[in-house]
Amino acid sequence: MLKDFVKLEKPEEEEFAKRLEEERSKLFAAQMKIKDAGLPVMVIFEGWGAAGKGSVLGKVIKNIDPRFFRVKTFPKPSKEDLRYPFLYRYIKEIPEKGKFAFYDTYWMEEITDERMEDLLSDKEYEERIDSINKTERTLVDNGYLVMKFFFQIGKKEQKERLEKLLDDKDTKWRVDKGDLYENKHYDDCLEVYDQYLKDTNNPTAPWYIIDSKDKKFAELQVLEFLNQGIETALKNKNLASPILQNVFPLKKTPLLKEVDLKDKTLTDEEYEEKLDKLQDELRELHNKLYRKKIPVIIAYEGWDAAGKGGNIKRITGALDPRGYEVLPIASPEPHEKARHFLWRFWTRLPRTGHIAIFDRTWYGRVMVERIEGFCSENDWQRAYNEINEFEKELTDWGAVVIKFWVQIDKKTQLKRFKERQANPEKQWKITDEDWRNREKWDKYETAIDEMIKKTSTEFAPWYILESVDKKYARIKALEIVIDRIKEACDKDKKD
Amino acid sequence: MLKDFVKLEKPEEEEFAKRLEEERSKLFAAQMKIKDAGLPVMVIFEGWGAAGKGSVLGKVIKNIDPRFFRVKTFPKPSKEDLRYPFLYRYIKEIPEKGKFAFYDTYWMEEITDERMEDLLSDKEYEERIDSINKTERTLVDNGYLVMKFFFQIGKKEQKERLEKLLDDKDTKWRVDKGDLYENKHYDDCLEVYDQYLKDTNNPTAPWYIIDSKDKKFAELQVLEFLNQGIETALKNKNLASPILQNVFPLKKTPLLKEVDLKDKTLTDEEYEEKLDKLQDELRELHNKLYRKKIPVIIAYEGWDAAGKGGNIKRITGALDPRGYEVLPIASPEPHEKARHFLWRFWTRLPRTGHIAIFDRTWYGRVMVERIEGFCSENDWQRAYNEINEFEKELTDWGAVVIKFWVQIDKKTQLKRFKERQANPEKQWKITDEDWRNREKWDKYETAIDEMIKKTSTEFAPWYILESVDKKYARIKALEIVIDRIKEACDKDKKD
Repeated sequence: MLKDFVKLEKPEEEEFAKRLEEERSKLFAAQMKIKDAGLPVMVIFEGWGAAGKGSVLGKVIKNIDPRFFRVKTFPKPSKEDLRYPFLYRYIKEIPEKGKFAFYDTYWMEEITDERMEDLLSDKEYEERIDSINKTERTLVDNGYLVMKFFFQIGKKEQKERLEKLLDDKDTKWRVDKGDLYENKHYDDCLEVYDQYLKDTNNPTAPWYIIDSKDKKFAELQVLEFLNQGIETALKNKNLASPILQNVFPLKKTPLLKEVDLKDKTLTDEEYEEKLDKLQDELRELHNKLYRKKIPVIIAYEGWDAAGKGGNIKRITGALDPRGYEVLPIASPEPHEKARHFLWRFWTRLPRTGHIAIFDRTWYGRVMVERIEGFCSENDWQRAYNEINEFEKELTDWGAVVIKFWVQIDKKTQLKRFKERQANPEKQWKITDEDWRNREKWDKYETAIDEMIKKTSTEFAPWYILESVDKKYARIKALEIVIDRIKEACDKDKKD
Repeated sequence: MLKDFVKLEKPEEEEFAKRLEEERSKLFAAQMKIKDAGLPVMVIFEGWGAAGKGSVLGKVIKNIDPRFFRVKTFPKPSKEDLRYPFLYRYIKEIPEKGKFAFYDTYWMEEITDERMEDLLSDKEYEERIDSINKTERTLVDNGYLVMKFFFQIGKKEQKERLEKLLDDKDTKWRVDKGDLYENKHYDDCLEVYDQYLKDTNNPTAPWYIIDSKDKKFAELQVLEFLNQGIETALKNKNLASPILQNVFPLKKTPLLKEVDLKDKTLTDEEYEEKLDKLQDELRELHNKLYRKKIPVIIAYEGWDAAGKGGNIKRITGALDPRGYEVLPIASPEPHEKARHFLWRFWTRLPRTGHIAIFDRTWYGRVMVERIEGFCSENDWQRAYNEINEFEKELTDWGAVVIKFWVQIDKKTQLKRFKERQANPEKQWKITDEDWRNREKWDKYETAIDEMIKKTSTEFAPWYILESVDKKYARIKALEIVIDRIKEACDKDKKD
């Protein structure tokens, strides 16, 4: 793309001034439309060192009120960054609805740098590209406008600019080793950049190559493309997106009504004995996975009063408090609701070697949000695949992902609701909403059956915990957690 | 304190079991009281390596529902951490109202480590102590319960525990160089720890030394102190705190009504000429302060329609977008309201070398919150000192703090409100609330006069921008910003 892109012709002075003025006013006017439409806009600036990304960025944002945009830069990943999936620090910074986020380099630079330094194998490179393309698609499908600009200048032009910067002690720091390396190996870099642009030139988030020899003209090009992109996105606001075909092998799962809840019990003696043994085992394993830096994500879903809390407690009872976190998920706060539904889970991921236990999860999208109409049908229909892709990212990163559905029958729920209401210490656990949800039992059952069927992937299957006898469910959960962690530790060859 | 603390006597087995059981239930029962009372509880565990902080922590949190607590650990500060004030990463993690935060080491360890490694001069050490004591006092005054535990074991006991951990490859990683150093230099460490404990043994946030030779007994001690602390805090919930005497030299300031707004005008030609010159100068300076890693904080307050937004634009027009951020401050979100009022500003501080421009600020506490009754009188009365201390932390860190009050008269505001309403592109800028606030002009004027008088410290003075002619105000702001940055750059000797 870089080698054969068609340069736009710079208009004559008078027309140039007129068009620039027009585009600036258009962007100024667009900010309120964006706010009203709740459109989140990501504007990504990539390109050669000293190509003028920063100065064009500075000009573009002059047309926007500071309430409506943020600028974010991404230095090389820190040690801490490296303890999270590659996508983590980028997704963390996606904008809220109705606002702009400008990025002075986003994930491209990290990848192409690593590619130049031979730190990424072909396979790893392909995985990154795949992650990015999927994420961009998910963002666009969820209403984001993603505008990607690559600032192109020639080798000679870059050299001159770098030399000028180096000449002044107050601008010298702007030139880093990477820029000099880039200029020295211009042709090799060109290959790598060109390949990346081709690999990520998505129809719904295409690349725009900006001829940046003339900075003022670069500004005009960016403004024109950006305004055009905004216009299109505003028109498409309520467009539904394709529901993709499933590409992940699924495990066979039972319907909830087929789950046998009888005879799944333990005596108190059996329970105590097993609990002690298993907790000891898990305690040991926690040390091991910490050392091997394996992240673990345990997701709990289940009927109200099914016993999630007590079940979680038996897991955490065996864990070092510095190495795990229980994340209770309530309805999203305003700043969370203003972003893609997976954002608040991305930002809560554990570091490598740590365990995150989610008490309710991202599956709210296809349960409560579906049933209460908090999102459109197209949204929750798409979510099965979005969730599978999310969990695939996690397992590719090396995480153990364990999903529990804690199952009881309707009669047992009623009994427990009544018990809770009778016990002053537990009354806070039962609310009117619980009773309302109970009335929708059948709707939920349909949704849950569909959810379990569509998201029981081989890499992140659901486990059903029969919890009419809570003791039985707790032991089963411990056994599964131990098995899965053991398996991951064994796979990890280093010792 | 460590050398002469009185060890509690461990009770006989039967009594021990009884008391442990009692304290566990008490903590369990306390969590709902804490939630209902909106009490935020900080529980800090410090002490010798291998003293059992982690395992006691694990036992204590077993009595609390995961919805109501978080555990936070603090490894050595990263490069990124070092670009913020020392307090920054700790304050970032204070708990919400009604919740517990447990810390496995907090700011003590960082300081005593640096002290042992001779990285802190006596003066720097004293400054840190002062920062901590002030912060703890502010937290307690604002309703936080701060419980501080130091886990004490002897040299021999520590040695045995470390050796045991080193023996097993799955626990070996728990022992770091610091632990071994600590044991080797036990007596020197003891001196440093003891001094720190004395220096921070505040009446409202005292230290509790935990005899940790017996881990189970350590748990009981922590539980007893903690439950007692909670009980006291719940009783004191609505206690007012002393309004401290001002200790910071103040500049003489005029009352708003004494500010001469007439003749503070510029012709268009004067304005354009000065604007160009000053923006060029600021552009250069921005490079310089980036290189010298000086952080700059510019705070804007002013009447509605006084021209804050346009004023800010003339500053940012000269800045590199990668080196500054405009932070529009609206009413706090739920998770912000649930914490100390300065928290959302602490967490928005710029990194060294960066500029943060706050469009409205922490002064909301003594303006809108005072006038609308969003906090108690004792709260806003205390806030002047809390704010002065906050700004002192910032300037001690090396930040340039510039505070602008953008001033117009009541007539000018009316004119501008009407203009805004008549202009479709600016209608969003004027709301019913603006009109309601206008009715409270006199109340605001009283509050602002008091605010300016009490917070015009020598290190962070207020500047009044006469803005009936916005051009005049913009040029004045640019001149002040340039002067202050220049002054800071000149003071910084390195070049």
